[in-house]
Amino acid sequence: MAAKKLTSWLIAAICVASPLGFLQAAELPLVEKQVFSTENFTTFGGETIAEVNVGWEAYGELNAEKDNAILITHFFSGNSHAAGKYSADDAQPGYWDAIIGPGKAIDTNEFYVISVDTLVNQEPYNPNVTTTGPASINPETGKEYGLDFPVVTIRDFVNVQKLVIDSLGIEKLYAVVGASMGSLQAIDWAAAYPERVERMISVIGMAEADPWTIANLQHWANPIINDPNWNNGNYYNGEAPKSGVVQALRMITLGSLHPQIVNQMYSASSAREPAPLQDIQANFSIVDQLEAAANLRATYADANHILYLVRANQLFVAGFEDSLAEGLGNITAKSLFLPATNDLLLQPYLAKRAHDILIEQGKESSYSEIAGPWGHLDGVVSISQQADRIRDFLNN
Amino acid sequence: MAAKKLTSWLIAAICVASPLGFLQAAELPLVEKQVFSTENFTTFGGETIAEVNVGWEAYGELNAEKDNAILITHFFSGNSHAAGKYSADDAQPGYWDAIIGPGKAIDTNEFYVISVDTLVNQEPYNPNVTTTGPASINPETGKEYGLDFPVVTIRDFVNVQKLVIDSLGIEKLYAVVGASMGSLQAIDWAAAYPERVERMISVIGMAEADPWTIANLQHWANPIINDPNWNNGNYYNGEAPKSGVVQALRMITLGSLHPQIVNQMYSASSAREPAPLQDIQANFSIVDQLEAAANLRATYADANHILYLVRANQLFVAGFEDSLAEGLGNITAKSLFLPATNDLLLQPYLAKRAHDILIEQGKESSYSEIAGPWGHLDGVVSISQQADRIRDFLNN
Repeated sequence: MAAKKLTSWLIAAICVASPLGFLQAAELPLVEKQVFSTENFTTFGGETIAEVNVGWEAYGELNAEKDNAILITHFFSGNSHAAGKYSADDAQPGYWDAIIGPGKAIDTNEFYVISVDTLVNQEPYNPNVTTTGPASINPETGKEYGLDFPVVTIRDFVNVQKLVIDSLGIEKLYAVVGASMGSLQAIDWAAAYPERVERMISVIGMAEADPWTIANLQHWANPIINDPNWNNGNYYNGEAPKSGVVQALRMITLGSLHPQIVNQMYSASSAREPAPLQDIQANFSIVDQLEAAANLRATYADANHILYLVRANQLFVAGFEDSLAEGLGNITAKSLFLPATNDLLLQPYLAKRAHDILIEQGKESSYSEIAGPWGHLDGVVSISQQADRIRDFLNN
Repeated sequence: MAAKKLTSWLIAAICVASPLGFLQAAELPLVEKQVFSTENFTTFGGETIAEVNVGWEAYGELNAEKDNAILITHFFSGNSHAAGKYSADDAQPGYWDAIIGPGKAIDTNEFYVISVDTLVNQEPYNPNVTTTGPASINPETGKEYGLDFPVVTIRDFVNVQKLVIDSLGIEKLYAVVGASMGSLQAIDWAAAYPERVERMISVIGMAEADPWTIANLQHWANPIINDPNWNNGNYYNGEAPKSGVVQALRMITLGSLHPQIVNQMYSASSAREPAPLQDIQANFSIVDQLEAAANLRATYADANHILYLVRANQLFVAGFEDSLAEGLGNITAKSLFLPATNDLLLQPYLAKRAHDILIEQGKESSYSEIAGPWGHLDGVVSISQQADRIRDFLNN
């Protein structure tokens, strides 16, 4: 029963952006995952990755002028499946179906919407994800990279996307739009390649990892590093550090939610449960249920990939210049920031700070908060609230 | 350098409630730790603890009528050293010296102020703490209890304090005042023994562990449970689960702080540090510094005691009746709730809920928030802000 509840909750929270999503699922357009490959990719840190493969998908049609492309950049635990479905019975349709599709805020009748799996994606074993990271085979050794894989940054995610965009002959992006870690990529696109980005939408994001965020993200890495099976990243021929991954995912899940929604969803769990009073090793029902959810989420995850993702987020400063103001100073795109009021993970002050700097610099920037009980996840679950604002922003 | 910075920070944050505290430390009254012992203590869960020993201390004089006693109940990582100093060179004077002392808000010229170490105190190895818990010797076996120690609740902490109060011949408490976990004890005192509590002050507290708080607290237990040295609580003759304890304390520290103060204190740490870009196993300086602080904090801590403290907090519902409203319905004391606006651990909604229920029930209750950049720790560091309100509350 717990598993059933959690499965439906995960679908509701991660996969379908609104209750309407369930009804509309049957009518969602079909989409196909494709793979982009490149060789000798040079990282921001100056290392070389011999072979990079990433998945990507697109919705709508690229026009003859190739000036109608919108890039959607994905969040930490996500992938490029931002909209549509792979088959009629796709159990996990696009996470932003509420705003991407024919006639929707990001209208695929008008725009060519494209999304790319990041490097070191959390789920290298997900059959719908193609990514390159520590779990990939190093062509030089014929074995998994492990910690020999170079540290990668949000800029590297952007540069891989740029190669995909280049391969399609797209010179300028009509917009880059992303939630959470996707927002980091969107802002960095605008700061790194200002001549190629006309509009930028940052949802539940930040422009720089502040000390608190660096320290908080480290809590997701620590259970993995402290799992004896992690073995300094060399576990591919032995037992994987599953316990560390499950602990990490449990914290990622809870950290993305506000108490309001947790208390609604798990109202049956309470301080008055009898077992935890009788036995120090008995769990509260909410603890067991979050454990079950984390176990489900761990199915396709890789421990090293999570560590590399944490590091990429910790290293983020938009533009990768000497200061945030300098990085944002490069931006020419029109910007829209949409943090969630109840976000406890990337709190609104982070988006506000970037917006304020842009305004100080005389740039065109707007700011509006997403209300809702979900916290960080309001950026996915409650995004339809901002559909009109997004549509207006894109049409101007 | 990191250790020095952290030591002074810990003293500032945990031990001294205001910058003035440093100046006043030399003039603080001396206080002596005493020990209270009792036998065959029956827990709320119906188990028996053969021998209970707890430390306690008091400031001011108990008057002839014995009606001027104020009980101070301590927080999770704290102990009964609420005020004063043990010796002229006591490096850690009382945590609430800003409000407890001669002429202060809780005036020791007028009141007899007493505080008691809780059962399963986090620091059984602290020479200034006396506590009974899993690290204590079970008289039946001559060995440490480990997980044979019964689960204890906030009510058990209260009942031990009640025995101490009884032993002093105090029939009625002028007030019970506590911060964080101390607030839980204060509220439960008022709900369990309404005829013995005239006033209750809850600082940064809650009246019931809601599902979110139960799940969030579990994050402090998980690193210990997952440390192989924990060995189901049997580690007293082997290597202690230090790594799990350090991880837990790191989360307790960061969870008690708001990003504002973390970003001020660790402003030298940034996403632009070079080492973490070059080496996935290199740490950001803030991560190393928080690790060093957690290592310091782990000196006197016991892993099982942390687990039992987590459980006591998770099991809390004021009055331990079938519902929170029923429990609060017992209260006759005048109440004052002082949550901290920026508290991310026990957010103000928790105190507000208890206050609202009391008001609905026609009780006398006040509510005021502590402002400040510290978050949860504002209940200690910024408490002087509420000194006048506390003084007025106690004088009426």
